[in-house]
Amino acid sequence: MKKKSAYTVAVVGATGAVGAEMLATLEARTFPVDRLLPFASSKSAGGHVRFRGAEVNVHVLTKDSFRGVDVALFSAGTDVSKEYAPIAAKAGAVVIDNSSAWRMDPRVPLVVPEVNRHDLENHQGLIANPNCSTIQMVVALKPLHDHGTITRVVVSTYQSVSGTGKEAMDELAEQCRRLMNFDDVHPTVYPHQIAFNCLPHIDDFLPSGSTKEEVKMVNETKKILGDPSIGISATTVRVPVFISHAESINVETKKKLSVQEARAILSTAPGVQLYDDPSRRLYPMPIDAVGTDAVFVGRIREDESIPNGLNLWVVADNLRKGAALNAVQIAEAVVR
Amino acid sequence: MKKKSAYTVAVVGATGAVGAEMLATLEARTFPVDRLLPFASSKSAGGHVRFRGAEVNVHVLTKDSFRGVDVALFSAGTDVSKEYAPIAAKAGAVVIDNSSAWRMDPRVPLVVPEVNRHDLENHQGLIANPNCSTIQMVVALKPLHDHGTITRVVVSTYQSVSGTGKEAMDELAEQCRRLMNFDDVHPTVYPHQIAFNCLPHIDDFLPSGSTKEEVKMVNETKKILGDPSIGISATTVRVPVFISHAESINVETKKKLSVQEARAILSTAPGVQLYDDPSRRLYPMPIDAVGTDAVFVGRIREDESIPNGLNLWVVADNLRKGAALNAVQIAEAVVR
Repeated sequence: MKKKSAYTVAVVGATGAVGAEMLATLEARTFPVDRLLPFASSKSAGGHVRFRGAEVNVHVLTKDSFRGVDVALFSAGTDVSKEYAPIAAKAGAVVIDNSSAWRMDPRVPLVVPEVNRHDLENHQGLIANPNCSTIQMVVALKPLHDHGTITRVVVSTYQSVSGTGKEAMDELAEQCRRLMNFDDVHPTVYPHQIAFNCLPHIDDFLPSGSTKEEVKMVNETKKILGDPSIGISATTVRVPVFISHAESINVETKKKLSVQEARAILSTAPGVQLYDDPSRRLYPMPIDAVGTDAVFVGRIREDESIPNGLNLWVVADNLRKGAALNAVQIAEAVVR
Repeated sequence: MKKKSAYTVAVVGATGAVGAEMLATLEARTFPVDRLLPFASSKSAGGHVRFRGAEVNVHVLTKDSFRGVDVALFSAGTDVSKEYAPIAAKAGAVVIDNSSAWRMDPRVPLVVPEVNRHDLENHQGLIANPNCSTIQMVVALKPLHDHGTITRVVVSTYQSVSGTGKEAMDELAEQCRRLMNFDDVHPTVYPHQIAFNCLPHIDDFLPSGSTKEEVKMVNETKKILGDPSIGISATTVRVPVFISHAESINVETKKKLSVQEARAILSTAPGVQLYDDPSRRLYPMPIDAVGTDAVFVGRIREDESIPNGLNLWVVADNLRKGAALNAVQIAEAVVR
């Protein structure tokens, strides 16, 4: 990309939960935005978003929307990305796509800057932002992989409703209100009640019995770590939390890493914030991660059931590092 | 125990969450109760409980409380069990203790009737009821262990607040109400906010970094399955759910079990209810298990990261099968 002092930035899906976080992140990190172009579906277009204290009109996305755009951040779902990301790239924009549409395409780098920034080098105008649950896991795993060579990962997730979007957050709040008043609930966003419940079901089921979310965690992690030999088993679960995903991660390494070594490694790892002092009841929690940039790692323990095993508890704001922040970090790396 | 047509049954901790469920279970299963003696701490004594449509006075527990008692169900915490269970056993009662006080004592059988009823044979008046999160796991694992020989288990739990007791259920409800009204919350039962949060912290922390709850799952499972060679790693997490625990369980077996074989085995396993049809969005959930007796198993999948791996999602009512029901089932086995 041609180096400029400031860039024309399009945000596709600017009125969604992640889109709003993208605008806030561009502003907070003082990304050199010359001109902001927010796009949304015809349902939300016509309104406006706030950016740097001003109101900016939201337009409907069309095939001509990307003329003169330098960077296009997409977060409007798979179908929109499938159709419009190639159009934007062809028009000369660098597309950073938050959907799953292009992630496993071998021509498309799938990037978490702390982990595999080097994969950006040969991009062809389209860069994929990984799945939220994958991003926070690989930020924690990469330094351990570098030092001990990870051979297997068993992960179970505790994912917040904001991963589904604004309407899911409203549904959780509304169901809590109704149940507190002894009213019935009528789920519309999720197939079952989410308030005071756990749904072992994120994204669609595949014939194998796994969900797409589970398969994403497996395949994306291998691609980002650049190591298809790592064995990964994922179980993804929605819990009644508004923001931030938590993950219980069991890791097996080729070389033994003690708890002390793992702590030392993670304490200086980029993007990681160690939060691990059980004696003071300090461990990562979803409510503490909200609105922060770090991937919090705690509850680091030896797994005594195998010779080289570790357990970790990893929490991050799924809208920030899990989506908007990571996308903006990619944009920063691209324009740097 | 001497066979009788009906028995004098003491319930120690009769006014707690589990105690109330014990009374309901004795009644629902028409356990042959001749005389019911509910005991509580001096705080709750003086009141009454309902049993078979009548009001029964609650008395303060003393060293003389167990004269003439045939069966004593204890659910009043570790300290009460440590002190009074031997007294009750010495007075001739068969004690079924729901605390962790005696579980790992080699003289004390630790029993889930569907799994190791035979361990009751040589009891010496004191029988331990396992931890709630252990019970539902071993009910699901035992039939798989019989057919495939389990070598390793990695489990992450999603445990409801009723496992802590009534006051924790009140705390969750109260925090939800306050947060819905944009009020601050002031945790007293848990060290941190539980509403819309996840706490990777159940029971006290040990110097190893594990919690007592995690160590219970490891040690009790080995004792109940009678196989100390099984490797077990547990991460236990409190989630904002009122009743029922869920568990994401990864199992490695010596002999390969296909998903079809595991389903066939579990479909006829005692105490297990298969609930596994993702195409119809059927999988076990906490809200569905409330008030039921079964251990629900679903999301049975092959774990492709190892040659002989399976994933399971297991849910049960922690007050029922996880506590009161299992204790009453032990009592039934003892008097049979």
